[in-house]
Amino acid sequence: MSWYMQGGTDSDVAISTRIRLARNLAGFKFNLKTEDEIQKLEKKITDNLYAIGYGLKFFKLKDMDDITKMSLVEKNIISPEFVLNKNEIGSILINDEENICIMINEEDHIRLQVFMSGLDLENTLNLAIEIDQKLENLLGYATNKKYGYLTTYPNNCGTGLKASVMLHVPSLLEAENINKILYTISNFELNVKGAFGEGSKIEGDILQISNKRTLGITEKEIVENIKVITQKLIEQERKARKILAKTNIDLEDKIYRSYGILTNCKKISQEETNKLLSNIKLGTDLGILPELTDAKIRKLYLYTKPANMQKKLGMQINKTERDIKRAEIIKEIIKEK
Amino acid sequence: MSWYMQGGTDSDVAISTRIRLARNLAGFKFNLKTEDEIQKLEKKITDNLYAIGYGLKFFKLKDMDDITKMSLVEKNIISPEFVLNKNEIGSILINDEENICIMINEEDHIRLQVFMSGLDLENTLNLAIEIDQKLENLLGYATNKKYGYLTTYPNNCGTGLKASVMLHVPSLLEAENINKILYTISNFELNVKGAFGEGSKIEGDILQISNKRTLGITEKEIVENIKVITQKLIEQERKARKILAKTNIDLEDKIYRSYGILTNCKKISQEETNKLLSNIKLGTDLGILPELTDAKIRKLYLYTKPANMQKKLGMQINKTERDIKRAEIIKEIIKEK
Repeated sequence: MSWYMQGGTDSDVAISTRIRLARNLAGFKFNLKTEDEIQKLEKKITDNLYAIGYGLKFFKLKDMDDITKMSLVEKNIISPEFVLNKNEIGSILINDEENICIMINEEDHIRLQVFMSGLDLENTLNLAIEIDQKLENLLGYATNKKYGYLTTYPNNCGTGLKASVMLHVPSLLEAENINKILYTISNFELNVKGAFGEGSKIEGDILQISNKRTLGITEKEIVENIKVITQKLIEQERKARKILAKTNIDLEDKIYRSYGILTNCKKISQEETNKLLSNIKLGTDLGILPELTDAKIRKLYLYTKPANMQKKLGMQINKTERDIKRAEIIKEIIKEK
Repeated sequence: MSWYMQGGTDSDVAISTRIRLARNLAGFKFNLKTEDEIQKLEKKITDNLYAIGYGLKFFKLKDMDDITKMSLVEKNIISPEFVLNKNEIGSILINDEENICIMINEEDHIRLQVFMSGLDLENTLNLAIEIDQKLENLLGYATNKKYGYLTTYPNNCGTGLKASVMLHVPSLLEAENINKILYTISNFELNVKGAFGEGSKIEGDILQISNKRTLGITEKEIVENIKVITQKLIEQERKARKILAKTNIDLEDKIYRSYGILTNCKKISQEETNKLLSNIKLGTDLGILPELTDAKIRKLYLYTKPANMQKKLGMQINKTERDIKRAEIIKEIIKEK
């Protein structure tokens, strides 16, 4: 089963954990542009594919159809910038569970990513380090005593590590001023963003927390720092939920109205879907909405996204048709036994 | 069965028909104020109760509890002004079906009203005239050759007849400028108002059409005039519905979202209820919403009104409690077999 369809630790609030390591191979220029260099790099990696293991398979972006590529972006498995690069110089190594995905020729030669459901920074980091050491032995990295792992842009060098956690915090966002939360978090050298990285807006009450610093700090320190803040936010979200659930019927009303619209509408935009899914996810997490399960909520989130919906349907459809199909798919998933 | 729980002619648009005759008895002052005169008038009427027939029963307003009185106002069977009169000098004659209600000591000695479901001006008028002649023979009316039936205020004299029809015109109100409709209707010497008479706002897409003139025009002419305009509006509403239903999925979406909210919300105001009921009534009238029946829609309209809800529950509750109970009652009625 794909990792994002499974539950995890603290998954009433923590949606997912990601560890990303930026690496570059010794003996290659940074930021490869020419066909020739790119092919050489790809060959070096694919020649070692069996030795790397983990069930990883190699795909060139230019050989993949747009919907498949966008479906990976929607799952936060590859970056939008990677796909939108007009020269399509990128490729990926990915396994069937999709919890390991290595982007090749993104900003760096290698962007090794490991994903887990819920909050699980240690295990995610351990698996990433294990794969990373294998890659280092097989491929040879560009490193430097002072700057650690060398990267195309200096803001990633040192550990080359970006750890991030996605949190669903609807009650916190309702109870507290978002700017106050953002300010507090930024004091801990962390970034807070929407689900789709830099500059993406906060949608569906989902925050992405990640480290700012990569240099002059150990991997353990980075992960520990995020863990402390994340657990604090999870605690605060749970407290806010309890208060909202206790003091009035408004929360229950909001959750059930969202459920009523999702199960009855004949067309719905992705934006509205995200808003309503956030409400019903909160409902199941609080045990207020026994009509739904965690697994169904995960399915609803995934298959209401444009590319994943079209992938499921096996056809390309325009926005108007998608809004209608989205309403049908939502009903189907909710009705499933 | 109460008249308002039944279907009628053109009831996809026409909700109800009412004929009201303003009459005053000879030998009494107009607009009675003293206890003594009022008792004398009431005695004259109650002495003839058996002779009048029609299963009419006599009730003094001051003997009725507030919820019962307001429940009659909500059904448009008695006027709000009649109940709100601080001296509580009024009384009523009413039958079990509630399709005949005579207000005593409202603005005039007698306000004879007959109600029917749907659009049925002729039959309603015929029944009113039949009762009226009986009352005239038994009680003796104040009349005048030039001004016909004499009334407390001159704007009612002549025929003393007010004929009115309630129309549910959601699509017309969406398709056309309401001011244009109002202007056209007022050219035919008709009034257009909300459901609760003079100055009441149009709520839930329901218009009340009634005649302005009562003098220098026959009963038949009044009724014919309203009938022509009403049938025109019904036709226009049906045309607008067809256009809205054909051109897009928006109407179906609106109807089902309203249904989804009504069947899932945990609290709801009367105002929102009226708005959503208007949408689902349109849905059943168009055959778009097979989940519901006309009879259930009628029940929903009635028992979501504050006084009728409290009468059904058998207890007095405040607005916050009503909003919660209203959501429960809506679910119950919709679930009924």
